[in-house]
Amino acid sequence: MNTYFVIAAAVVSLLMAFGLYRKNAAIKVTDPRMSEIAGYIHEGAMAYLKRQYMVMAAFAAVMFIFLALILNIQTALCFLLGALFSVAAGFSGMMSATRANVRTAQKAKDGMASALNVAFSGGAVLGLCVVGLGALGIAVLYIVFDGNNDILTGFSLGASSIALFARVGGGIYTKAADVGADLVGKVEAGIPEDDPRNPAVIGDNVGDNVGDVAGMGADLFESYVGAVLSSLLLAAGNAARIGLTFQLVAVGIVASLIGVLVVKTVKNGDPHKILNIGTYLASAILLVAAFFLCRAVDDGLKLFGAIASGIVAGVAIGFITEVYTSDKYKHVKHIAQQSETGAATTILSGFAVGLKSTGLPILLIVAAVVLSSLLAGLYGVALAAVGMLATVGITISVDAYGPVADNAGGIAEMSGMPHEIREITDSLDAVGNTTAAIGKGFSIGSAALTALALFNSYAQAIDLGTINLLDAKVVAGIFIGGMLVFLFCALTTESVSRAAQKMIEEVRRQFREIPGILEGKAKPDYARCVDISTSAALREMILPGVIAIAAPLACGLLLGAEALAGLLVGGTVVGVPMAIMMSNAGGAWDNAKKYIEGGAHGGKGSDAHKAAVTGDTVGDPFKDTSGPALNILIKLMSIVALVFVPLFL
Amino acid sequence: MNTYFVIAAAVVSLLMAFGLYRKNAAIKVTDPRMSEIAGYIHEGAMAYLKRQYMVMAAFAAVMFIFLALILNIQTALCFLLGALFSVAAGFSGMMSATRANVRTAQKAKDGMASALNVAFSGGAVLGLCVVGLGALGIAVLYIVFDGNNDILTGFSLGASSIALFARVGGGIYTKAADVGADLVGKVEAGIPEDDPRNPAVIGDNVGDNVGDVAGMGADLFESYVGAVLSSLLLAAGNAARIGLTFQLVAVGIVASLIGVLVVKTVKNGDPHKILNIGTYLASAILLVAAFFLCRAVDDGLKLFGAIASGIVAGVAIGFITEVYTSDKYKHVKHIAQQSETGAATTILSGFAVGLKSTGLPILLIVAAVVLSSLLAGLYGVALAAVGMLATVGITISVDAYGPVADNAGGIAEMSGMPHEIREITDSLDAVGNTTAAIGKGFSIGSAALTALALFNSYAQAIDLGTINLLDAKVVAGIFIGGMLVFLFCALTTESVSRAAQKMIEEVRRQFREIPGILEGKAKPDYARCVDISTSAALREMILPGVIAIAAPLACGLLLGAEALAGLLVGGTVVGVPMAIMMSNAGGAWDNAKKYIEGGAHGGKGSDAHKAAVTGDTVGDPFKDTSGPALNILIKLMSIVALVFVPLFL
Repeated sequence: MNTYFVIAAAVVSLLMAFGLYRKNAAIKVTDPRMSEIAGYIHEGAMAYLKRQYMVMAAFAAVMFIFLALILNIQTALCFLLGALFSVAAGFSGMMSATRANVRTAQKAKDGMASALNVAFSGGAVLGLCVVGLGALGIAVLYIVFDGNNDILTGFSLGASSIALFARVGGGIYTKAADVGADLVGKVEAGIPEDDPRNPAVIGDNVGDNVGDVAGMGADLFESYVGAVLSSLLLAAGNAARIGLTFQLVAVGIVASLIGVLVVKTVKNGDPHKILNIGTYLASAILLVAAFFLCRAVDDGLKLFGAIASGIVAGVAIGFITEVYTSDKYKHVKHIAQQSETGAATTILSGFAVGLKSTGLPILLIVAAVVLSSLLAGLYGVALAAVGMLATVGITISVDAYGPVADNAGGIAEMSGMPHEIREITDSLDAVGNTTAAIGKGFSIGSAALTALALFNSYAQAIDLGTINLLDAKVVAGIFIGGMLVFLFCALTTESVSRAAQKMIEEVRRQFREIPGILEGKAKPDYARCVDISTSAALREMILPGVIAIAAPLACGLLLGAEALAGLLVGGTVVGVPMAIMMSNAGGAWDNAKKYIEGGAHGGKGSDAHKAAVTGDTVGDPFKDTSGPALNILIKLMSIVALVFVPLFL
Repeated sequence: MNTYFVIAAAVVSLLMAFGLYRKNAAIKVTDPRMSEIAGYIHEGAMAYLKRQYMVMAAFAAVMFIFLALILNIQTALCFLLGALFSVAAGFSGMMSATRANVRTAQKAKDGMASALNVAFSGGAVLGLCVVGLGALGIAVLYIVFDGNNDILTGFSLGASSIALFARVGGGIYTKAADVGADLVGKVEAGIPEDDPRNPAVIGDNVGDNVGDVAGMGADLFESYVGAVLSSLLLAAGNAARIGLTFQLVAVGIVASLIGVLVVKTVKNGDPHKILNIGTYLASAILLVAAFFLCRAVDDGLKLFGAIASGIVAGVAIGFITEVYTSDKYKHVKHIAQQSETGAATTILSGFAVGLKSTGLPILLIVAAVVLSSLLAGLYGVALAAVGMLATVGITISVDAYGPVADNAGGIAEMSGMPHEIREITDSLDAVGNTTAAIGKGFSIGSAALTALALFNSYAQAIDLGTINLLDAKVVAGIFIGGMLVFLFCALTTESVSRAAQKMIEEVRRQFREIPGILEGKAKPDYARCVDISTSAALREMILPGVIAIAAPLACGLLLGAEALAGLLVGGTVVGVPMAIMMSNAGGAWDNAKKYIEGGAHGGKGSDAHKAAVTGDTVGDPFKDTSGPALNILIKLMSIVALVFVPLFL
């Protein structure tokens, strides 16, 4: 019964996404220059997706055969479906975002409220598709396989595999283009950001979509599916608890839909506040509904406590992230001030802010874990994760609004829109930076809870009653898991460097070889730069991807199931603060630079500004490549362990 | 009986230290300018130590009363003795180093070999005092308290407390002076490094001693004592095993003495190779001796395997560190090359090198832990730690040679010595940079094994048969322990920034207000800068220190003994890779800068050089403050847990 509620809610969500997409698509773009530029971005994005899908298809085929041989055909089919649904969600999001960007710029002519509305709808398509497809997939498979949740782990593995491609590849893509565009364009040639004379500028705008739309969506799709699945597994056959999980999923979708509608209804006010209303409202609805739903289940109040701890932690982590990364608070101002003594002090102060910002989020995660498990054991932790993620539909909508607004700003700039229009797109973009930072904090927090819930599912599946910290192999596993995080960060950082280097050479070449390019008389070869990012992303993704999948398998087979449990904990315990640090340091550097550009400490062109630009460039792969990639690493390792449990028995 | 061997070896070690000190002191310094500058450094160092000892005395008094009330008077007395012995070792090292520096410069007139000999003797005094006093203290207390090892934990806590002051305070001191001197002197005023016109230059030279002599010595004193103590505890009353531990200590001292003598005997050849011979020889002697000693004990071959794993891991980690931080290998060259595209790529590539460099050392530590515990259980891990640390006498001697050579270079520069002399001191200094980096790698590796051995001792003392990773409180503890590492790094980094800021203001003020200072006609007020570093170090140390002691206590009392076990593991598992990363990234940036200064990528003054200087400045607190401070954090938390076990029962 409950599964049908989920299916109904999911279908409504998908229909609404379709409606929003159609409505946005119907908006006419009147400016031909705008259309042209948006066309490049859209084509670039599609070119990337097309090549990525080919790689994914090959990977999925191999994995399918592997799963079918090692485990069973059902799990392999679930894997395929999980991958397919994640791809579908990401593709819809990309289609929407790369159409909404130019229409946001177009609608900025009618004022802030209209533009916000279009940009938000553009993002909401992704949010609604993620929850719609995620929930639909799980509910249908639950019915088809008659509650055999072990098989459903395949669905989660499919989602994780796509997330690996989308988040890691996307992260490399976007920062190769961004860093490359900045280092030659801004620093060497002295032309502004988003200048159409820069050959890498289209790649940079495509990158925003590839990383922050497709990548982020796949990341949260994975978390969402993983949390729900582990909740089903840890309910351990208890029908009431399984029912409660599905009810929360259904209610969460409805709450997200209401949130989306409310944001679209409010016409006046600060955009950031309007977006916040949607998130907070959805959380509040879920909280109240969960209370009543839990009353029907044994130990209901305890279960409610577990759910509530997840909801509260999610909202609180978002808020804390804002404090550390927004220029309204002291931390970013401090970094800006430290930029006066040069780039070294910018880096050190930003790094320290990032490190410090891990404290409260970790304590919140710890509190949620301890509380939920005291109240409801291993199942409790999974419930907390579901609580945090049930309303992810609205969270993603707000989050994906960011790159749409960012693109809109770029398009307005490149097509030479008048100052008033650019002022509107710029202020929407600024809001997007903050929501993106908040979204990143939320992604990490939810990845942590999901990974722990999956870890618990793994321990239950393998029937490890105790995993003893005094067993040297467990400690070894923890160390190795932690070390993998460092290695993963090193690899992704170096990937960006290498790819950016190629981009730099290409941009320099074009500046050198295409006559009249810097005078704006000749058109740069955008496609070539897009192609460099695409190839680099797909190539550079392989090694980190292999490590994420092979390491847990190798550890489990060589050192045993307990060591693998250690590896999962080590990966999470090192990966979560590392991801928070990188994400927040990157966000803080970015906003410190913007704060200076707003006129503080000498404003644009000052020495402080130069130092802040260096900080921002360092922060780019921190916050958009390595940091987010860690979310994937910790979840993917957990789901690999869970799926391949039969091998370690 | 074995304890008397230890006492004899320790006394010989101390006598030899005294002999080396006297022999160095007898060398006449003929140049009055050299004498004057060395006098400033010596006075500055003593002024710092004097104030630090006052703070330490107050802290020790409070702690003594606390221990006497909460535990017992014997433990409190052991604590006092541990603190006193550590202070004595550090003080001897400082007295020696601040006399050997100028005499190394003096002896450089007679050629490389003479200068190397003096500098190495200057460092060896610290090395021999550390092992002499450490071993003496443990052996005497073992006899006095008739093998009641629980009481001896007080000695280890005393050592740890002093290490906290010496390493954290010292790290802040040295980098406040260094960063302050560089940012105003080199960057703003454009005067070279080690220029006597820079008011912070004496503070910078004092800082080398305060950080790399006193701090490093106290750090390894703590590891040495902790490893031996946990080996005694985990022998769990088995007389043969206790005897073996003491035998290893005695043989290790003798091996170190032989190593020192050999280094002092070799007259010709590459200084780096000569120093390496000493380390490798001592390790080889210990390895062979351990094999024969183990034959007399039950399961001797297994115990030997555990010891050997520690010895091999220690040597191998040192070598790996060199690969990542020396400009002879590709990593440093890569950073130098990346400096051509500006500071951002310098930072990113160095950060990636640091991250990557954690892989092999962690695998070596894991291998040593797994192997030693498979062979000999919890006792095996402690034996591995003893194996790694038994020859620390020669390791410290080589390590402490670095700051002596560095100071010698500074003194030669400041007193305007002729080019040939400076060439000799410069090349000795370059060797010192490499040995210092190797020493840091070794410090971290040994801290990791010591912390794990202490963790095992804690688990045994509290009689925790299993610490279950599926217990949410254990996971919570691991998360909190890991987060504390990030917090600790943030605090120490910010401390350096704040202190450096004060230094910058003071140097600017002196340049502004003292007429003729930049023309070299007026003398800067060195003492004022020394005082700023001193005050800052002592003040900024408080918060991290309080956290390191209070956090394990609070966790144990509030969340229980299992959660505290988790905290110790979390701290170690996050702290070790973090310390390796910071230390190696810092070392690599430093040497990339030196590599460019050697003429690569445009040499001094080029844009690549400017970028590399930024990297070096970021790396300074990484490698000399935050990184090494983590060694203390992980060991101190473990020993606090162990000492206060009665509170958590």
